Parts: sequence; structure tokens; C-alpha cells
Amino acid sequence: MSTKHKHAVIATDVVIFTIEEGELKVLLIKMKKSPYQKHWAVPGGLVRGDEALDDSARRHLADKTGLRNLYLEQLAAFGEPKRDPFGRVVSVAYFALIPVGTRELKTTEEYGGVAWFPIKRLPPLAYDHKAIVGEALARLKAKLEYTNIVYGLMPSEFTLTELQRVYEIILDRSLDKRNFRKKILELKVIVSAKGKRAGAYRPAQLYRFKEHKPVFVEVL
Amino acid sequence: MSTKHKHAVIATDVVIFTIEEGELKVLLIKMKKSPYQKHWAVPGGLVRGDEALDDSARRHLADKTGLRNLYLEQLAAFGEPKRDPFGRVVSVAYFALIPVGTRELKTTEEYGGVAWFPIKRLPPLAYDHKAIVGEALARLKAKLEYTNIVYGLMPSEFTLTELQRVYEIILDRSLDKRNFRKKILELKVIVSAKGKRAGAYRPAQLYRFKEHKPVFVEVL
Repeated sequence: MSTKHKHAVIATDVVIFTIEEGELKVLLIKMKKSPYQKHWAVPGGLVRGDEALDDSARRHLADKTGLRNLYLEQLAAFGEPKRDPFGRVVSVAYFALIPVGTRELKTTEEYGGVAWFPIKRLPPLAYDHKAIVGEALARLKAKLEYTNIVYGLMPSEFTLTELQRVYEIILDRSLDKRNFRKKILELKVIVSAKGKRAGAYRPAQLYRFKEHKPVFVEVL
Repeated sequence: MSTKHKHAVIATDVVIFTIEEGELKVLLIKMKKSPYQKHWAVPGGLVRGDEALDDSARRHLADKTGLRNLYLEQLAAFGEPKRDPFGRVVSVAYFALIPVGTRELKTTEEYGGVAWFPIKRLPPLAYDHKAIVGEALARLKAKLEYTNIVYGLMPSEFTLTELQRVYEIILDRSLDKRNFRKKILELKVIVSAKGKRAGAYRPAQLYRFKEHKPVFVEVL
């Protein structure tokens, strides 16, 4: 190995999405270290010597949220030589989905703070994390159209109106109600649950996802 | 930084696809080093200290093929702790597309050989390269359905029959001729070229891709 190949450190970073108050939000941690002490960052950290990349991402995710068994997907590796002022760090970025209404986030003393930010009003982000969040959002939008992974954001039971609303919030556009319902039911990725939800008009049928594993389906 | 974070080395590996003799093929290099001296591998190598990941992949691609300006896309990072017997190497894998009929591959003394293998008859592969090639193939198949990236495999001008044949070879199934033609023309990703190609029956219209950059279109 020639000396021009400097060793690099590998980190994993996880863009964690949820829906809250009608907005798509991401979990960020406040940095304490210079030069980023006024910045927020995507949660993450170094990969251990004996640790697979997915396991590292799962560990950082559990550390920051206290949650396991979330939808987690590798996004891409980010490796610009100067992306970290402390040395060569290649980040393997992931994104994770937390179901609407989950409220079990752990806090941690390690950082200046942990908070949810609306994707439309992000604070200044450290490193290249703006690009990482941007790519995660693009992937999430794209996958909403051709997979069932929205299951990762939904509570165990939901109405079709609630499901459509999650689509609309993430895609940032309104969808035709009749077409959406017809399509999502035809795909057979959701099935009727037992109950109904009382509403202002007649009670709405509840549904659940048949499987909590990703499949390719042409939703939109 | 705690000592449990062993430093790792970053490599890029590029799965290079082309179509030849009616088959989808990948470019492999023959390993010389034990324990893989009877194995073939996906071309690649270490990332230089000052080199971005994409630039590293482009360099390895140019080194092995002599070709530049090919379609190149990051696939995923592969980082199982024991994937390389020589130490912790995280591979950021890419895939690249070489147009049908390109014949300019450089040879190199560095390896025991360089050869094209049909994707259906791969030799034993070193490291986790079987998984890397498998994931590259899955991505290529998926992207054929919802993007225009097949342009990376086509010569500058082609008939609709030739384009359909490339789809059929990669997807490993036959497509309805009438539907395929109707759909691909409706999408307006290809335009008529000036000439026609003489064939056994009447001459066939030639087409070219309007743009050589990836766009999302629902082809199938």
C-alpha cells in the first residue's frame, strides 16, 4: 500500500424522519465542538472495529432515540476529502422512519441538545449534513411512489385519510382522494383492521399494513 | 477517539456492465494474491487521501477500461468487518455502463487477466463481490423500469427493436413489442435520428436519447 493512501475513519449517520404537527421532521443533535458549536447535526458516530455498517447505524439510532426495530435503509457514502475538519471521515449515511405519535425519545448529555426540526425550516447544519438530509428526503419521496415503506411512518392502525395525509405532507402536494384510495387498495399492501374511527361524519374504516417489510409497488 | 475505533481503509469497486453477444456481461479482473489467486474480482482499489469517492471510482474505471464519461452511479457501501482478510476495508461500490459495441478496453499487467463474463455464468468471486454484483444487477433492473439510464448501454443511434432487446436481455423476460414502443415514444426520452437501418424487411427508423443524463420516467 502506497503512502498516498491515508487511512480514513468510517462513521455512520442516520437521518431520522417522523411526522409531527402536520409536518415532516428530522431529529438533530446540537454540536458542542468547535467549529460547529452553533450548528446542529444528524445523529451518528464512528463505526467500531468489529462492527458491521448496519449494526453501527442501528446502534446510533437506538442510542439517540431509545427505539429499535425501526425502518432503516442505507442511503449513500459521503466521502469528500475535506468534509470533516478533524481528518478524513467517510460517512455511510442511512435514513430511518419513526411512526407518527411515537414519544419515547431518550435524551443524552453527550450533546448540547436533541430536537425535531421541520424539514422546511432546518437550522444551519454541520459538515455536509445539509446534503445528506437533502438526499435522504429525495430518496424518501421517490420510495413513497414505488414502494410500501411508508409503513415505517404509520401507527399500527390508520384510516385512508391519515395515510393519504402522510403522503401529501412528504410529497408536498395534494393527491386526488379517489385515485389514491383506489390505487392503494388495489395494491393489497394494506388490509382492513377490526375497528373504525369515529369522526365528524360517519366512522372511518381502519387499516394496517399487511407486512412490515419493503416491497416494490407502484403507488403513484 | 477511543481505541475501539480501529481505523479502516476505504476502497471503491466498480461493477462494469455491457451487452455483448446477446448477454449482459460484467468486467472482472483475475486476482494474483492469496487467498484469492483462483478468483476473479470487480475492478477497484483504495481511495487516495485527497480523493473524493466518485473521483476514485472514475479513476479505477478509466484505469481498467481506458474509458471516460461513462454512466457511473454509487451503489452502496459494503463494510462487514471480516469482508477482507487483510484488514478492515470498507468498499463503496459503484456500477458503470459501457455502450454496446465499445471496444477500447485497455489491458493491464497488474492483474492475472481482465475479461468479460456473462452475468449468468460468473466464476468464483473474491471477497463479497458476488453480493456486490448481485446488488448492482438488482439496481440496474429496477432503474430500467423507472429511469432512462439504459442510455448508458446504447450506441449513439439505435432502432426500437435494439432498445427493446437490451431491456429484454437485462430483465431476462420478453416484452410486448407494441406496448414497449408506444410507451417509450410517449415518454419523449428518445427522438428520431436522421438515418434508417436496412434490415431483412423494410428499413427501421433510428433513434437517439434526447439527453444523456438520468431522469425518472415510468418505462415499464
